[in-house]
Amino acid sequence: MAFPEVLERVIKNLAALPGLGEKSATRLALYLLSRPSEEIKELAQSLLEMRSKLKLCKRCFNLATEEFCQLCLDPQREKDILCVVEDPAALSAIERAGAYKGLYHVLHGVLSPRDGIGPRELRLPELLTRLRQENIKEVVLALSPTVSGEATAAYIVELLKEVPIKVTRLACGLPMGMDVRYADQMTLKRAIEARQNF
Amino acid sequence: MAFPEVLERVIKNLAALPGLGEKSATRLALYLLSRPSEEIKELAQSLLEMRSKLKLCKRCFNLATEEFCQLCLDPQREKDILCVVEDPAALSAIERAGAYKGLYHVLHGVLSPRDGIGPRELRLPELLTRLRQENIKEVVLALSPTVSGEATAAYIVELLKEVPIKVTRLACGLPMGMDVRYADQMTLKRAIEARQNF
Repeated sequence: MAFPEVLERVIKNLAALPGLGEKSATRLALYLLSRPSEEIKELAQSLLEMRSKLKLCKRCFNLATEEFCQLCLDPQREKDILCVVEDPAALSAIERAGAYKGLYHVLHGVLSPRDGIGPRELRLPELLTRLRQENIKEVVLALSPTVSGEATAAYIVELLKEVPIKVTRLACGLPMGMDVRYADQMTLKRAIEARQNF
Repeated sequence: MAFPEVLERVIKNLAALPGLGEKSATRLALYLLSRPSEEIKELAQSLLEMRSKLKLCKRCFNLATEEFCQLCLDPQREKDILCVVEDPAALSAIERAGAYKGLYHVLHGVLSPRDGIGPRELRLPELLTRLRQENIKEVVLALSPTVSGEATAAYIVELLKEVPIKVTRLACGLPMGMDVRYADQMTLKRAIEARQNF
């Protein structure tokens, strides 16, 4: 061990984070050491505060500091369209895209029997309750086109048959900038089947 | 802003770290949120403790929690050979390689006139003092074979002409696993000039 224990401890903690190996954790720790101590304090305090202050919105299960999240409380959002997402990161990605102005419903996972995640582990009963109580006209399923995302979407479509609401999903096709020659077969198949008018 | 302010603050702090963009900072923050609160506390506390407890070894300027670092205090280390490194990260890399058992001297930088780092900003006067006071027989210059690393090494060689000590440097050549066909010209030139006996 070349470094004092206090430093090795930080490196160990950083290296445990996803996407960081021992080398990048070492670089980060030494970088932090080289910064004014206020910067480290600010980082540490923001981490602690985040953990203690955040809870889930009572309605859509997005992250919130109050009973309801800022999106649910925003009078500008359209109240008759609901976007179902896997988790807060997916919600954030859709918000960044800037094309959606409705409400959300965060499942906090997708169906994955192997990991013991069945319908009860997701926020599906709460989704049904919302659709009965709120005046929702369309549900957009914004789940990833992966095996578990598609399975979850199919399950929700079945579930929603009992409520008379339009159900849509994100378009599948070629990502922007993709070279047709390098697109995988499944993506091309979807892009051809769902070809759009010019 | 899709997330509450307390979370955006963490993302901003993480995104300011080298090698982390907004996306990876968001992923990290949400990952930390999903972990038990003890883990976040441990990370935050280890960061604060690192910053408050670490100082520089009075002899070699490696990181230390006491007056001298653990390498300087280690009776097992060879006391007559000194390895000059750019910073603690370089020291750590050499320690991990496991082939060196002597002492170190950490410059905390390399010469870089553009950034205002001249000989006085590095720990060079302290190096000369050590060489006069300690019984050092060999100085290994372990600086990177980059423009500023080579310039710093050349400067130190000049400086050490006044003390009768053997000065060596790390071997330059092909990195392990390198394909000769893809090696750059400078590396190949060095590898040919410094060819070693089988």
